[in-house]
Amino acid sequence: MILHGKNNIAGALSAQGSQHIEAIDPATQQALPGIFTLATPVEIDQALDAAREAFVEYRRKSPQQIAGFLTAIGEHILALGPVLIDRTMAETGLPQARLEGERGRTVNQLNLFAQTLLEGSWVQARIDTALPERQPVPRPDVRSMLIPIGPVAVFGASNFPLAFSVAGGDTASALAAGCPVIAKAHPAHPGASELVAGAINTAAAQCGMPAGVFSMIHGDVDESRYLVQHPALKAVGFTGSLRAGRALYDLAAARPEPIPVYAEMGSVNPVFILPDYLKNHGAGIAAGLCGSITLGVGQFCTNPGLIITSDTAGLPELLDALGQQIGNTPPGPMLNAGIHAAYRSGLERLEHHAGVEIIAKAQASTGVNGAAAAVLKVPAAQFIADESLQEEVFGPSSLVVVGRGADDLYRIVEQLHGQLTATVYGTGADFLAFPDLLDQLAQKAGRLLFGGFPTGVEVCDAMVHGGPYPATTDARSTSVGTAAIFRFVRPVAFQNFPDHLLPEALRDGNPLEIRRRVDGKWV
Amino acid sequence: MILHGKNNIAGALSAQGSQHIEAIDPATQQALPGIFTLATPVEIDQALDAAREAFVEYRRKSPQQIAGFLTAIGEHILALGPVLIDRTMAETGLPQARLEGERGRTVNQLNLFAQTLLEGSWVQARIDTALPERQPVPRPDVRSMLIPIGPVAVFGASNFPLAFSVAGGDTASALAAGCPVIAKAHPAHPGASELVAGAINTAAAQCGMPAGVFSMIHGDVDESRYLVQHPALKAVGFTGSLRAGRALYDLAAARPEPIPVYAEMGSVNPVFILPDYLKNHGAGIAAGLCGSITLGVGQFCTNPGLIITSDTAGLPELLDALGQQIGNTPPGPMLNAGIHAAYRSGLERLEHHAGVEIIAKAQASTGVNGAAAAVLKVPAAQFIADESLQEEVFGPSSLVVVGRGADDLYRIVEQLHGQLTATVYGTGADFLAFPDLLDQLAQKAGRLLFGGFPTGVEVCDAMVHGGPYPATTDARSTSVGTAAIFRFVRPVAFQNFPDHLLPEALRDGNPLEIRRRVDGKWV
Repeated sequence: MILHGKNNIAGALSAQGSQHIEAIDPATQQALPGIFTLATPVEIDQALDAAREAFVEYRRKSPQQIAGFLTAIGEHILALGPVLIDRTMAETGLPQARLEGERGRTVNQLNLFAQTLLEGSWVQARIDTALPERQPVPRPDVRSMLIPIGPVAVFGASNFPLAFSVAGGDTASALAAGCPVIAKAHPAHPGASELVAGAINTAAAQCGMPAGVFSMIHGDVDESRYLVQHPALKAVGFTGSLRAGRALYDLAAARPEPIPVYAEMGSVNPVFILPDYLKNHGAGIAAGLCGSITLGVGQFCTNPGLIITSDTAGLPELLDALGQQIGNTPPGPMLNAGIHAAYRSGLERLEHHAGVEIIAKAQASTGVNGAAAAVLKVPAAQFIADESLQEEVFGPSSLVVVGRGADDLYRIVEQLHGQLTATVYGTGADFLAFPDLLDQLAQKAGRLLFGGFPTGVEVCDAMVHGGPYPATTDARSTSVGTAAIFRFVRPVAFQNFPDHLLPEALRDGNPLEIRRRVDGKWV
Repeated sequence: MILHGKNNIAGALSAQGSQHIEAIDPATQQALPGIFTLATPVEIDQALDAAREAFVEYRRKSPQQIAGFLTAIGEHILALGPVLIDRTMAETGLPQARLEGERGRTVNQLNLFAQTLLEGSWVQARIDTALPERQPVPRPDVRSMLIPIGPVAVFGASNFPLAFSVAGGDTASALAAGCPVIAKAHPAHPGASELVAGAINTAAAQCGMPAGVFSMIHGDVDESRYLVQHPALKAVGFTGSLRAGRALYDLAAARPEPIPVYAEMGSVNPVFILPDYLKNHGAGIAAGLCGSITLGVGQFCTNPGLIITSDTAGLPELLDALGQQIGNTPPGPMLNAGIHAAYRSGLERLEHHAGVEIIAKAQASTGVNGAAAAVLKVPAAQFIADESLQEEVFGPSSLVVVGRGADDLYRIVEQLHGQLTATVYGTGADFLAFPDLLDQLAQKAGRLLFGGFPTGVEVCDAMVHGGPYPATTDARSTSVGTAAIFRFVRPVAFQNFPDHLLPEALRDGNPLEIRRRVDGKWV
């Protein structure tokens, strides 16, 4: 396989720049084949100009045509075969089975959005028919629906090189909404990005889509800033760190025309183990918890980084069992040297924090970028007193917060930052003792789990992968599941239009046969 | 009637501050009775603390309870009787019939949201049931719905002292969503604000709502800034100028935890008169246009400030007739001296702009704050070359832009700023000649009108009173109609919950009998 290393500007390969990057194999720290050229401002302008132009044609495509395009993207990704899996393995250190599974998820996401388009009711058609006889003034005929907003920039994540990257959930939902996409390839997997971008272009050409519907650029901070500030850009999808996500949000908010930024920035995903549950299941839950903490070397935004429990019966058993499991976890290779260094320094910061004790730490790896799992504990009083203990340590570690009763528990919840998820283990007796807990937690997280583990985010209609800041920059949205499409649309109303000039979704005869709200009733 | 002039902090009257304002009668420039004390930071803190506390109780109220509260607010506003109308007339110069109509609209809005709650499906319940047998991993049970986000600040408009003020659409939709409200009284109608706030408190007490569910403060720039930056605040609703709206948006975006700002900042609401239509209806449309331009002394955010047409048959007739109508319009009193001064200077700026010609200007008023209606024209080339000609001149004037064919028309549309509305007059022949116009305009406005006039915004399910920046700071929303409720909520998912711990909207038996999306089907 030979990688061209160029930017993909509306289907044309372009490498006008003089700055280059290489992909690094995290297992060896050696450069992989391929030299990737960062995009110049001129190339980014070209991508946006093409996107703006393509948008005019693309937004008028039928649901069937766009659904066909999404499905074709999935097919062309699958058609890349082992070449894509091999390159992605080399760039990320993630195992083959995981990446094959992630590829399946990526294709499923595309297909799910295709189905959403074919079903069609996502446009939220609302129709209030005229009441010409109403006094004192007649009521006009008003009809509204969601329409796409325009070109969207997608910043992929390092930890999901397929499902949250070039053809991941952000791209799939933006394309489904009718918006062209400019993807910024993650510098940790530029080769996988190039391959997937090629698959999208092939699908676009095959399905008769305008070339500007998709571009992909290589870039670093400067290129990202330029892209987000481009006047033709209308929204941003991002998955990554709080620092980078907030920087993009701030840039977008300061534009002459501010645009929405949907940045999913991770969280510490507290797991609450309530006293009555703890009493009988302290040891029993440890294996599952350890599995969730160390899954994928802890590199998931839904990784449970916080375990909130109490100094009551069952705690010693929980800590013993969890410590043993974590201590015996073999070291795993992290995605890249930057993430590995951040994990080590984050863990070190925790270890030396007043009041924090190490319960167990796995043996350090002798290999490159190998991360040792760890579990630590801290009394609730310290945790409540210091917000820095809530900062995410991205990797296979978790902090056990030990409270002394109901007051501590509610104080912990009260000052919890916004989270993607919160998980609760409790018995009937626990929920009688803490009647307000679930309601309070719903104010803090995008998804509540009753038992189970937060890792593993189902792609479905009801999923909410989002949550209050700093989990995301826009708690009104989800970046996983079919509702992700609502990030890239806005409503528009048509007043007193003749039927033939209305969009099909709003015409009298309901030619698309979609569910609509007509004069206050769903039909 | 004696006005106490105090801030209303969770139902308690409070005047700790040392800064005061008075209401000015715009017809006389004389102070009206009543001294109003601006809120101190301590009072604003108290309002937010009470709101935060009330939110815990308020968000658990049943739809029936909140609907009863909204209805009661309307009843208590009506019960104020002529006292409210008289004071509002004195503070705004708006005529009695208009204010009685606006009061009716205010009450209707409250009742419409009450109905929305009773119907219940607005929470968008989505349910994906478990598939325990699915391979390779079982699908969990995931259910999601919209929940309220927390305390909302409402900044009322000067031009709708009832329907977009203390108990206006923002307050009604936020309370309906389950969010406490802190209203900032508009300094141009503090007395009307006080009266309406009292009605809300009476309703809250009568319906057993927590007192902190509503507060109203008097304030200027500093108080507004303090309110928007308060950590307990979760969203802002605003109707007013671009400058003030953008300032609040910038403050909110720069917070440690950014919050959404729904600022409706007005627009110039272009009216397109296409050539074939113009040919036969140039004169005929003038009376309606003049009526819409001068309605309420032009003080509507949907006032048609721009008329876009072409140098073809019918134009002289349009300009003659429109000029005559505008020239004969009696001067009307504006809402306050500030708005009047802004109108005069805005009009002067236009008059002296290169290329701009006055078609007609009504006789200036000899009274206080009386505004003379005006209509001006400019060639398309000048308009396209200078964005400043798109700035809103709030008042009874309009600028006719004269193009020279299809190219001019599309160039005008291309560079139009975001608008609340765009209106098109055209024949079948026109839409054949300009096949892309409606699609292009949908990208620029929140509401498209086929004929008619943009003033008069229907309060209904399908209404979109919003639009791309700078019409609003958030084009994804509407501030009029039942969909306004979606501004103050966010989705949350519940995974694998036992039925009895789920919110009622998500339980198996569907006790609320609402429409839900279950396993991909609407039921």
